[in-house]
Amino acid sequence: MANRRKNSDEQVPVASRRQFLRGGSALVGGAAASVAAAQAVLAEPSQGANLPPSVPEWMKSPGDPVGSQLYGTPSPFEKSVARNIPKSGDPMFWTSSRTPLQDLDGIITPNGLFYERHHAGVPAIDPAEHRLMLHGLVDNPILFTMEDIRRFPSESHIYFLECSGNPGFKKPYGKTASDLVGLVSCAEFTGVKLSHVLQEAGLRHEAKWIIAEGADAAALTRSIPIEKCLDDALLVYSQNGERLRPQQGYPLRLFLPGFEGNMSVKWLRRLHAVTEPAYSREETSKYTDLMPDGKAREFTFYMDAKSIITRPSGGQKLKSHGFHEIAGIAWSGRGKIKRVDISVDDGKSWKEAQLQEPVLTRALTRFRLPWRWDGGPALIQSRAIDETGYVQPTLADLIDVRGDNSFYHNNAIQPWRIAADGEVTNANA
Amino acid sequence: MANRRKNSDEQVPVASRRQFLRGGSALVGGAAASVAAAQAVLAEPSQGANLPPSVPEWMKSPGDPVGSQLYGTPSPFEKSVARNIPKSGDPMFWTSSRTPLQDLDGIITPNGLFYERHHAGVPAIDPAEHRLMLHGLVDNPILFTMEDIRRFPSESHIYFLECSGNPGFKKPYGKTASDLVGLVSCAEFTGVKLSHVLQEAGLRHEAKWIIAEGADAAALTRSIPIEKCLDDALLVYSQNGERLRPQQGYPLRLFLPGFEGNMSVKWLRRLHAVTEPAYSREETSKYTDLMPDGKAREFTFYMDAKSIITRPSGGQKLKSHGFHEIAGIAWSGRGKIKRVDISVDDGKSWKEAQLQEPVLTRALTRFRLPWRWDGGPALIQSRAIDETGYVQPTLADLIDVRGDNSFYHNNAIQPWRIAADGEVTNANA
Repeated sequence: MANRRKNSDEQVPVASRRQFLRGGSALVGGAAASVAAAQAVLAEPSQGANLPPSVPEWMKSPGDPVGSQLYGTPSPFEKSVARNIPKSGDPMFWTSSRTPLQDLDGIITPNGLFYERHHAGVPAIDPAEHRLMLHGLVDNPILFTMEDIRRFPSESHIYFLECSGNPGFKKPYGKTASDLVGLVSCAEFTGVKLSHVLQEAGLRHEAKWIIAEGADAAALTRSIPIEKCLDDALLVYSQNGERLRPQQGYPLRLFLPGFEGNMSVKWLRRLHAVTEPAYSREETSKYTDLMPDGKAREFTFYMDAKSIITRPSGGQKLKSHGFHEIAGIAWSGRGKIKRVDISVDDGKSWKEAQLQEPVLTRALTRFRLPWRWDGGPALIQSRAIDETGYVQPTLADLIDVRGDNSFYHNNAIQPWRIAADGEVTNANA
Repeated sequence: MANRRKNSDEQVPVASRRQFLRGGSALVGGAAASVAAAQAVLAEPSQGANLPPSVPEWMKSPGDPVGSQLYGTPSPFEKSVARNIPKSGDPMFWTSSRTPLQDLDGIITPNGLFYERHHAGVPAIDPAEHRLMLHGLVDNPILFTMEDIRRFPSESHIYFLECSGNPGFKKPYGKTASDLVGLVSCAEFTGVKLSHVLQEAGLRHEAKWIIAEGADAAALTRSIPIEKCLDDALLVYSQNGERLRPQQGYPLRLFLPGFEGNMSVKWLRRLHAVTEPAYSREETSKYTDLMPDGKAREFTFYMDAKSIITRPSGGQKLKSHGFHEIAGIAWSGRGKIKRVDISVDDGKSWKEAQLQEPVLTRALTRFRLPWRWDGGPALIQSRAIDETGYVQPTLADLIDVRGDNSFYHNNAIQPWRIAADGEVTNANA
């Protein structure tokens, strides 16, 4: 066992660093990984009293038996990793909870931490009683049971879902990545192509929109253009393998890959094929923006390219100088992420991050960049570019175009400020 | 609303079927999807009393507010979807719980349903106290804290994990897919390449094996060949985005993609670089098979290609004739699944299933085939072929080679029998 002395200048064990550099060429792996590894240096290992090969308490007697959790839950030590909800006011007026992005790795959001947004609470639906009605401009109106829906050919895809007010324009002032853009999550969704179900009912050519209605107390209603319905729209019943959770639309939701979240109507009970949109509350009073020329920007379906650094991010603290991996997530409603650039010098220069393969269309994409923090103040930010060539804008650029009455579809770059003491804060706040 | 009459001959609404066939060419999507869709016919929709547009109870008052579940759980109606544990005996002697494969869709196993296998229960480890010791044939022995490990460059991959006794040779007699091969699950794992950590410590050339030890009361110990350690072996701390669950090795586990599950040592506390394997209990008395020639087949690392139909599968019942999708999962420790064949006539003929993209190396791959059940008895089975060209064997073929003393690494084809009343049972039982 090496009990190495603290090197207070750089907080790096000298022997360890020397060895690391010497062994650098022996590494297996891609070029980017080698670059990262070659810059990796460890913080001083802690010198606690109860270390191997001394035997910790939890090795001295058998642990919890099999079956103590028929449905498993996280370690009690991870209690703080939870959905992020408003901290004040009457809970009955809270309408969303956010994914703790800064605590997560990879691209899959576990179902228990998938973000929530609802307009009249979460209905407790008995799937045996639930029905989906398909009517209007179809030859055969049909009332589907869940068993009927499950009979159709199925598909599975990993997709992100994002609320269009994530964050609003006027309050990009949260402390953490979750406060700011925690209304985005990503999962593997399984369901039936909506086009199959429309075909079964004999969709008529004059149908140009499908009005989708939820079975919640708000009867949330949105108008979906027929082109999307016949393209990649899904009727989803499973998320990350298991059936949808109640917060995400159990037992059935619409899913429109890349579109603003509320259009993927949860607790789906009705599809009405029509010639004109419904102009429902959620597409007129809400989810529509007043532009500088006084006109309303409505039916803003697609979520444009966006990214955020989740580590290091607001609320975290760098404890020592030297190597840190900058990691985050990027996504685009228009398709695949092509590139993510990272700046660590307030936007003066940018460096291309490594994207975790496979890069999937309309899914979160994890990006990473090795970085050596010199211990001085720094401003770090990420910029996503999608396969259409669209570049994630700065907040100033976005306000130039949209004015300051907008609320939805803020996909601006999020800068983080790192202080000399390592504290990370929202540079927009 | 169409109140269509029951067509007792085929249990298919006539108007619906006619429309479906007529509209067949209008479908958007790939050829295989169209074939499937063209064969899709609905069961008779249920004619319950409380149907839309009548308003169900759960729309009449607000549902559960945001934050009623800071960490979400499944719907109470899904209570039966749980880990599958032994039904008798003393719980202290149960050593595994199985994933309910027949209830899942897609390839991701939610963390709460990921299979468990442990040798002395689940230790309750405080991550702040946990240490990983790396010693032996290295220039600098190192004691890592979890913070140290998190400092290294990270990677995320979707991989399956499978126990090598899944099922044993002598008891492929369970009722359900879970009873038979529920000791396989799949998730997105995030961690650090083991090669980075070995490099940091200055691994010496004479090191040929790494002995990995767990911090459970069994101190589970396995010997890992150095080639694997320097290839794709990971030190994993996150699974499906969040930190590992205690049952899966919180706060740190080894992960060896494609290798038998117990080698991916959970609660990892020690890595010892040596020249010879440890010949530990779990690689001599256990996880080794007696061959017909009297020799022991040991160090059987790779899990060979395997598949199982999960729907329809044992314990389920087909409620009507006509279209059913046959769906299942395939995997190989040697790389990607190349093809899955399905037979519905007791192996007389085989048809290629559609694989859900993206097909990932050493991950579950979801396969599907449209099928029209004529209502007669049928014997259905799937056969996986991986990218090395290896073909999943029948149980008889496997026993020909391995004899009848083997217990581990049964990757045989699993046939299901469908009776005329629609009941599905294990055709090997």
